[in-house]
Amino acid sequence: MILAAGKGERLRPITETRPKPLIPILCKPLLAWQLEWIEGLGGLVDEVIIVVGDMKDKVIEFLSKTAANKKIRVVEQEQQLGTAHAVLRAVEGVEEEEDVLIVYGDVFLGKPELLLEVAKREGNAILGAEVDDPSQYGVLLTKGEDSLDKILEKPKEHLSKVVNAGVYKLRVGDILSNRDIQFSPRGELEFTDIVNKIASVSDVRVVTAPRGSWIDIGLPWQVIEANKTALSNLRGQNIKGVVEQPVVIHGDVYIGEESQIKAFTYIEGPVYVGRRVRVGPSARLRPYSVICDGSVIGFSVEVKESVIFENVHANHLSYIGDSIVCEGVNLGAGTVTANLRFDEKTVKMRIKDKVVDSGRKKLGSVIGGYAKTGINVSLMPGVKVGSFSWIYPGVVVTGDVPQKTILKP
Amino acid sequence: MILAAGKGERLRPITETRPKPLIPILCKPLLAWQLEWIEGLGGLVDEVIIVVGDMKDKVIEFLSKTAANKKIRVVEQEQQLGTAHAVLRAVEGVEEEEDVLIVYGDVFLGKPELLLEVAKREGNAILGAEVDDPSQYGVLLTKGEDSLDKILEKPKEHLSKVVNAGVYKLRVGDILSNRDIQFSPRGELEFTDIVNKIASVSDVRVVTAPRGSWIDIGLPWQVIEANKTALSNLRGQNIKGVVEQPVVIHGDVYIGEESQIKAFTYIEGPVYVGRRVRVGPSARLRPYSVICDGSVIGFSVEVKESVIFENVHANHLSYIGDSIVCEGVNLGAGTVTANLRFDEKTVKMRIKDKVVDSGRKKLGSVIGGYAKTGINVSLMPGVKVGSFSWIYPGVVVTGDVPQKTILKP
Amino acid sequence: MILAAGKGERLRPITETRPKPLIPILCKPLLAWQLEWIEGLGGLVDEVIIVVGDMKDKVIEFLSKTAANKKIRVVEQEQQLGTAHAVLRAVEGVEEEEDVLIVYGDVFLGKPELLLEVAKREGNAILGAEVDDPSQYGVLLTKGEDSLDKILEKPKEHLSKVVNAGVYKLRVGDILSNRDIQFSPRGELEFTDIVNKIASVSDVRVVTAPRGSWIDIGLPWQVIEANKTALSNLRGQNIKGVVEQPVVIHGDVYIGEESQIKAFTYIEGPVYVGRRVRVGPSARLRPYSVICDGSVIGFSVEVKESVIFENVHANHLSYIGDSIVCEGVNLGAGTVTANLRFDEKTVKMRIKDKVVDSGRKKLGSVIGGYAKTGINVSLMPGVKVGSFSWIYPGVVVTGDVPQKTILKP
Repeated sequence: MILAAGKGERLRPITETRPKPLIPILCKPLLAWQLEWIEGLGGLVDEVIIVVGDMKDKVIEFLSKTAANKKIRVVEQEQQLGTAHAVLRAVEGVEEEEDVLIVYGDVFLGKPELLLEVAKREGNAILGAEVDDPSQYGVLLTKGEDSLDKILEKPKEHLSKVVNAGVYKLRVGDILSNRDIQFSPRGELEFTDIVNKIASVSDVRVVTAPRGSWIDIGLPWQVIEANKTALSNLRGQNIKGVVEQPVVIHGDVYIGEESQIKAFTYIEGPVYVGRRVRVGPSARLRPYSVICDGSVIGFSVEVKESVIFENVHANHLSYIGDSIVCEGVNLGAGTVTANLRFDEKTVKMRIKDKVVDSGRKKLGSVIGGYAKTGINVSLMPGVKVGSFSWIYPGVVVTGDVPQKTILKP
Repeated sequence: MILAAGKGERLRPITETRPKPLIPILCKPLLAWQLEWIEGLGGLVDEVIIVVGDMKDKVIEFLSKTAANKKIRVVEQEQQLGTAHAVLRAVEGVEEEEDVLIVYGDVFLGKPELLLEVAKREGNAILGAEVDDPSQYGVLLTKGEDSLDKILEKPKEHLSKVVNAGVYKLRVGDILSNRDIQFSPRGELEFTDIVNKIASVSDVRVVTAPRGSWIDIGLPWQVIEANKTALSNLRGQNIKGVVEQPVVIHGDVYIGEESQIKAFTYIEGPVYVGRRVRVGPSARLRPYSVICDGSVIGFSVEVKESVIFENVHANHLSYIGDSIVCEGVNLGAGTVTANLRFDEKTVKMRIKDKVVDSGRKKLGSVIGGYAKTGINVSLMPGVKVGSFSWIYPGVVVTGDVPQKTILKP
Repeated sequence: MILAAGKGERLRPITETRPKPLIPILCKPLLAWQLEWIEGLGGLVDEVIIVVGDMKDKVIEFLSKTAANKKIRVVEQEQQLGTAHAVLRAVEGVEEEEDVLIVYGDVFLGKPELLLEVAKREGNAILGAEVDDPSQYGVLLTKGEDSLDKILEKPKEHLSKVVNAGVYKLRVGDILSNRDIQFSPRGELEFTDIVNKIASVSDVRVVTAPRGSWIDIGLPWQVIEANKTALSNLRGQNIKGVVEQPVVIHGDVYIGEESQIKAFTYIEGPVYVGRRVRVGPSARLRPYSVICDGSVIGFSVEVKESVIFENVHANHLSYIGDSIVCEGVNLGAGTVTANLRFDEKTVKMRIKDKVVDSGRKKLGSVIGGYAKTGINVSLMPGVKVGSFSWIYPGVVVTGDVPQKTILKP
């Protein structure tokens, strides 16, 4: 069961034009990765249930084009009443004796075999993930060697480095018999409250994902980090497109079908280039760059640790560093992202009226779908440009630009 | 007879520093092309009469350096009273029984053999040209199969796609006996009025130029289009200058004597490079670029579908797209032209206080002779910079700049 | 004896973060060059006395790391009372019968054998240098063939092209017996007054340096010119670092240990690259560029006739022409220097509240140590940016920026 209904408001402007499950990791939607992992579980899984909600039509359209061996059932969560509500909607009609493997829609696993580990664990199980800073997560407290005591949301004290990874295997009967919970302070029915109730009456085993093997995609820069995690698994040079000599390619690099790398281009892997992409001449792709289908990285354009979605045009004289550029964006010649503060402090980003520290010293811009920048535009570190917005030539973008906005000097 | 006296006001700023007949097509003045075509008519022509007026000294100076086999007679049109006045001045002293082949000074032919066709046609003849939008031209109405009924200026209704191409063969006696015409609403004596009178009393045969083989150079972007037409005739790679390896050259490309193409340059033809031009290193010339004598297209500079006149310096980090850059211009590092509107509508240009739609979705700037732009200057689509003007660093040019103007932030 | 105590105020912002003797010529401090020349004199020299003052700790630290064969004695000039005061402090304890070779701390010799010539000349001697414009120097007037009559400071009339080069060989006894001089109008005890007194009573031979073989480093652009003089002595291609093919290298080029030249880079010598420098990919180094240890000249960055000190980062899409960039500077992507006025007049620079004509038609910026420029910053010809200052993205710097200043739009 995949919970793919969430609104992803903290991921704006990325989620202004696509639902969270369709955010691309190496040019493939997150949901497609999750389905592949489940596919990899083989006979352990009888049926895949996907709970959809926000932009459900796009999710369903994607699923209709996905050739899965598993039977897929789509359940609509009409109201966004929380994860518990989503799970309860989804298990309707499932036998009490069945186990369900629940995967939150924002989970990306660098090691998908973790899913198998959870699925094969005897009885109820939960995936924990080791992280550097657990303060923004639900921390897993254990009793005994690996039995869940409780999940504690965003604890003030430092109690453990292992956090709730959003992956569970639970008996349906256990879920149903612990379904009576209250709305949380943020007004939602939280599935963790059900899990805590289950843990208080029975055994829930904790499987732990080592550091760097799990990431949740809840904030814009985590799209960069999830792609980075996926890129770390790239091995060798797999070039299906056409490379015009001379071009220099170092490291692990994938170049998809019908893509063209023009002469005098310099690529330093790990780098992933999708299909029908044009790169160069005289372009540079630095480590941890992902360029998706139909995009153009043109003459004297450099990309570094950035995720470029589909059909983006950066034709001339640009630098895109530590940034996310969504589908259909057009960057004028000389448009440049700044990715480092003068004071070298970590870059902050405004997320739903709160300023959140990204923890990254280098972070550029997030440019929403179909936005356009004019020539010689400058984007300051951490700014977000809304989808369909236009930034006039020569403008220095110092703060977030809402969607469908024209920003003049 | 070539009518080369016109002022070319609609072609400003190009015509601020050179007369219309000296506008370069593949780095050769329009008048030189016309003389070559006439040369190609061989014994059919006894004498070439050139009517000069605006900047006549420059035209005469050019003629003095032209080694033509034909006898050339220069006639000065002191007052700009219209094309009829120019023709009547020019035929003074020519026998009534002679035929004159009249070519307007703004005519460029992709197929010069059309001139031979007109010249060899029995009796009086006129060249018509098929165009997509005849609304801005004199439309040719015919009677019978190919006999001119009348020339109708800028008809509101769509009557025909064949327009007056500005090329006639007429008996001098017919011109003289139909010379009594009135001043037109715009205050000129129009030669078309004489032609209409001739057509009403005798036969004027219409020879038709197929679409794309004729262009009149009356508006700035037509300089790009005339060069494009000429480039379409380029065949193969004819490289007389020096190419330093590695360089990539695709398509049909001409590189003139003493020109240097430095390493890591990428050329996609059709491209025409004149003499003593320096290109690169790491430059890019895209299709339909023309770079004339003595110019420099330097490091990380990209040119696309543009006409660069003589002795232009674009030394570093520029993008010049769909633009005309006149002689002696200097572009600061980082000067960039925008050539596409955000709304992707066709680009308009201000022509003599009227806004004229170029019909082009991509159109950059027209930069007059000896103008200079500072570093990081941005030029919006369709703007014109007057000759000898200076644009300060960092300025975004959003409207036309008159000649000899200093534009500060 | 080297007079290395001067404050170098006219060299600001360069001297804000380093004393004048540590200004790099081909990435080696001026003082190191002078010590090498003296080393080259062999047995002629018993002891080296270095007078330190301004930022004496940095000079002493440098000396402590210098493995010299000669015995070095450091003398501190506590108060900056002028060159005479410095010399008199330094000769304390030296025998009257000894000769001292005095070298001003700002002297750079393209032909160091001149020092030997002065040292070996019988009796007292002074080095004169032929220059184009002597008006800003002390002019040497002679009597007889080559005997000094007197040194005349900044004469209004044009009396000679040979100026005081700041290099003397004098008997200590002669210095001491002519030590009674007055404070000059600028409030200093000038050593030239002592020399004039010596010349009036005994013979001081003039050795003349031919044009171009001597330069004093008193004004910022003279740092460029001293490096240029040193570069003129470079011969052949001496490449100790790693060059990744394809790269084009023309002319005389030195590339130091552990430096990396990445593919598609174009180098036109004379060029000097220090140690651990990274250049490219797709960079261009034009003649008379010096890039010092640990610096990065990155993607699509062009450097021309400029001196880049240590640990400078110019990572993307910049043009640095006729400029000095001090240690630790970071230039944002798209930062560009202008080096030519629109009116093509020589560039002026503000030096201690006076506007001084550099005599150069091309002169860019002087950027002080650890300054940072944002993306798409434009620097006008002749501007100085103080050390530790920050220039915000998109700003056009039209005047000097003091140190530790944040310049916003």
